[in-house]
Amino acid sequence: MIIDVHGHYTTAPKALETWRNRQIAAIGNRADMPRASEFRIDDDEIRESIERNQLRSMRERGIDLTIFSPRASFMAHHIGDFEVSSTWAAICNELCHRVSRLFPDHFVPAAMLPQSPGVDPATCIPELVRCVEAYGNVAINLNPDPSGGRWTSPPLSDRHWYPIYEKMVEYDIPAMIHVSTSCNPCFHTTGAHYLNADTTAFMQCLASDLFKDFPTLRFVIPHGGGAVPYHWGRFRGLAQELGKPLLADHLLRNVFFDTCVYHQPGIDLLTRVIPVDNVLFASEMIGAVRGIDPETGYHYDDTRRYVEAARIDAAAKQKIYEANARRVYPRLDAALNAKGQ
Amino acid sequence: MIIDVHGHYTTAPKALETWRNRQIAAIGNRADMPRASEFRIDDDEIRESIERNQLRSMRERGIDLTIFSPRASFMAHHIGDFEVSSTWAAICNELCHRVSRLFPDHFVPAAMLPQSPGVDPATCIPELVRCVEAYGNVAINLNPDPSGGRWTSPPLSDRHWYPIYEKMVEYDIPAMIHVSTSCNPCFHTTGAHYLNADTTAFMQCLASDLFKDFPTLRFVIPHGGGAVPYHWGRFRGLAQELGKPLLADHLLRNVFFDTCVYHQPGIDLLTRVIPVDNVLFASEMIGAVRGIDPETGYHYDDTRRYVEAARIDAAAKQKIYEANARRVYPRLDAALNAKGQ
Repeated sequence: MIIDVHGHYTTAPKALETWRNRQIAAIGNRADMPRASEFRIDDDEIRESIERNQLRSMRERGIDLTIFSPRASFMAHHIGDFEVSSTWAAICNELCHRVSRLFPDHFVPAAMLPQSPGVDPATCIPELVRCVEAYGNVAINLNPDPSGGRWTSPPLSDRHWYPIYEKMVEYDIPAMIHVSTSCNPCFHTTGAHYLNADTTAFMQCLASDLFKDFPTLRFVIPHGGGAVPYHWGRFRGLAQELGKPLLADHLLRNVFFDTCVYHQPGIDLLTRVIPVDNVLFASEMIGAVRGIDPETGYHYDDTRRYVEAARIDAAAKQKIYEANARRVYPRLDAALNAKGQ
Repeated sequence: MIIDVHGHYTTAPKALETWRNRQIAAIGNRADMPRASEFRIDDDEIRESIERNQLRSMRERGIDLTIFSPRASFMAHHIGDFEVSSTWAAICNELCHRVSRLFPDHFVPAAMLPQSPGVDPATCIPELVRCVEAYGNVAINLNPDPSGGRWTSPPLSDRHWYPIYEKMVEYDIPAMIHVSTSCNPCFHTTGAHYLNADTTAFMQCLASDLFKDFPTLRFVIPHGGGAVPYHWGRFRGLAQELGKPLLADHLLRNVFFDTCVYHQPGIDLLTRVIPVDNVLFASEMIGAVRGIDPETGYHYDDTRRYVEAARIDAAAKQKIYEANARRVYPRLDAALNAKGQ
């Protein structure tokens, strides 16, 4: 079985964006605020949006299952207040839940949180609970910068975030550390902000003792870990300067990297540098880079090809494709076991 | 000849830091502000600080020449106003000039600029002119984020920066794009902010047509280009999505990467992915990562070992070690030619 741990619902029917635009337009004018109940998409529209896009490519590429969360760039936690984020997150999470019900063999949901800059992350707990208990979500996406490129929240090692971690530990779910749209003109969203956030989050963990407080907390750093594997020697050296244990002991029981790296040399480096138990297959398809690579004739984000061609043995590939995901996402494993998979 | 294009005076005598601390303490209280003339270090102190540190390691590693600029993390452009930065830059640049006079065969200076958040970069021109004309500087360090992790300046593609570029083109000098200390607790200075800035700067160039306006402008992206070579497929794909030419045509006449990547797999990736004409030898020694790698028994920042072991031929190594630097830094080439080197 091949599990893609990083997919977003980037192809949701237009009605979603329309509702969101109405919501944004009504900020500061409560009377115009659309109700959640005014958002309606029927199952056929959802089916079509998935079958023609993600599911078609999954079938072409031999991907069995995707952990599926709301579109990352649309989370836009910087827009409006907690109320705005809360309604928006509820709608988006419900939609991914519906995808998972319509395609139970192919999509398992992960939740976005109703984060809002300056608001206590504990306010996200009710939505998290609902997504896990009612919707069967197996993970959350945690945005380390709800300001959208201003980086006004404390580091992930700060107690600020502990309410989320306590709930994650209780439910035994991991978080993918994933920012949203950058509203800082310095940072291109998918070309800088995403990768920077990955590197930043990793270094926040490295410089702290977060995992002493939460020995079972698990973070998945997307986009191949940003700059981290490429600079693994730098990070080993920095840990040494900071008097931390070896990274294998300090972080690698808790931090995992996905394979969203869109060329062969990148995946070769990732699989050479990072222990195989810490690498999880993912493509973020359909996402930031949708084109066909003229150098290969295949889609940039067809990461399975790179993993297949990497110099690792079949047992390592099986871990990357399936076993690691089942270990890092125990609720996914339980759901698969319940189906005899 | 082996040229290291990325060295900072991180070992300056204590008097430098003492003067700076007095300056910082006096901000907002003009009467207490120390004069530049109160800063005094004699040549012997400078000699010792270099001979025992950078020069010793250069000799051990077989590095002939280092392009040497003020300590990056001490630039701290976010501190004080333009006046504060201006006095500080003048002192630091004079010190690197003195190093280059004391060790003319081993150090060639590059200038820091008296940048200050919200201040027109044109104000940096007099210091730049002085450094090139009076001190023989062959390059500048340009900080894309003088706010120190708040990222309040426009992208490097903005006309805001054009006065600097016009002078760079006139003098035919490149800029290393190098941030300074992060005062944003989210960003560890050397473990996140530096790498993020490298990625950010590259993407700012990619998303723009800056080099149409300045076809001969040259940027050196330090720290191996941040996340860029590891994600080269992503950047090729993003250029495609943005309707830009192939990166070779769009950026690689103007953008270069140094080899400050502190492990073998990173240098292997860099030299596999980035055309050899765009890779410049560097170590940033003595810098962020000073320890010895227990996996190799050598210093993390002994990047020559990685380049030596990379699967590239002798001609490629000669480009990385010398020829590219002489092409990208023509004033260095001229200075070497004048000495018959």
